[in-house]
Amino acid sequence: MKENDNQYFMRRAIALAQEGMNAGAGGPFGAVVVKDGEIIAEGHNSVTSQNDPTAHAEIVAIRLACDKLNTFQLAGCIIYTSCEPCPMCLGAIYWARPEKVVYACNRHDAAAVEFDDQFIYNELDVTLEERKIAFSQELRDEALVVFNAWTNKVDKTRY
Amino acid sequence: MKENDNQYFMRRAIALAQEGMNAGAGGPFGAVVVKDGEIIAEGHNSVTSQNDPTAHAEIVAIRLACDKLNTFQLAGCIIYTSCEPCPMCLGAIYWARPEKVVYACNRHDAAAVEFDDQFIYNELDVTLEERKIAFSQELRDEALVVFNAWTNKVDKTRY
Repeated sequence: MKENDNQYFMRRAIALAQEGMNAGAGGPFGAVVVKDGEIIAEGHNSVTSQNDPTAHAEIVAIRLACDKLNTFQLAGCIIYTSCEPCPMCLGAIYWARPEKVVYACNRHDAAAVEFDDQFIYNELDVTLEERKIAFSQELRDEALVVFNAWTNKVDKTRY
Repeated sequence: MKENDNQYFMRRAIALAQEGMNAGAGGPFGAVVVKDGEIIAEGHNSVTSQNDPTAHAEIVAIRLACDKLNTFQLAGCIIYTSCEPCPMCLGAIYWARPEKVVYACNRHDAAAVEFDDQFIYNELDVTLEERKIAFSQELRDEALVVFNAWTNKVDKTRY
């Protein structure tokens, strides 16, 4: 990797943020996935245009990168995102397991333009009973039967 | 809603978990989205078969429900999931804003069958410097230009 590749790839993520916003695709966020010094996937926020609340830039880019690499994990990849990932995207990043994440704006910058990730961080830290969205439990015993079947399944693919 | 509709819908989510597992689609997780007493979308985990680390049951069902309703939010909907949502799915739920979430197994049950969401919860709570995946920052000033453009954009759709 060349000395200022980090800036080169981040500038592309920022350009995608601008392009997506200009096109009315969604919020001002862009991301790229890089492997072996090459961009293998790009994404920008597309929530409002695609009617998909999960279509944040990072998730769009992760799904595309996995599709291209034909794998469900991003070993050896670097994700460049124009803003610190929200809790949903952070979760997706941990499931995808890239090597590294590079971000530009932080969560406070995002809050200043009315994307309040902190609300979600707070909700993750309180008990289910305290959450703003109501959570309740049903039929745990019946669902555990399926978990036990998973434990005993011999031909499973772990992830 | 009839008295035991909660159990009816949860049994469907659990059946989807079993079906997905049997079909080799992914882990043992299922979810349905209900609006006005009707199932409008179903999903099961499809991570390993679809090469999509974000294809958890809840996210599959949320994306499908939004597509059907032609909206990026799930006002008035209830999500039934065979297991307490992981941090990624919880984030997706907050962005989708359903009325309620009903789950069967909890995060400890999931950990017992080797789906360790707690690792991700822990990572969400530590500083970027302390994380197991390396995080670094680049070009915040250039990305802030796009955020400022968003603030000034007159024809934006908020979400």
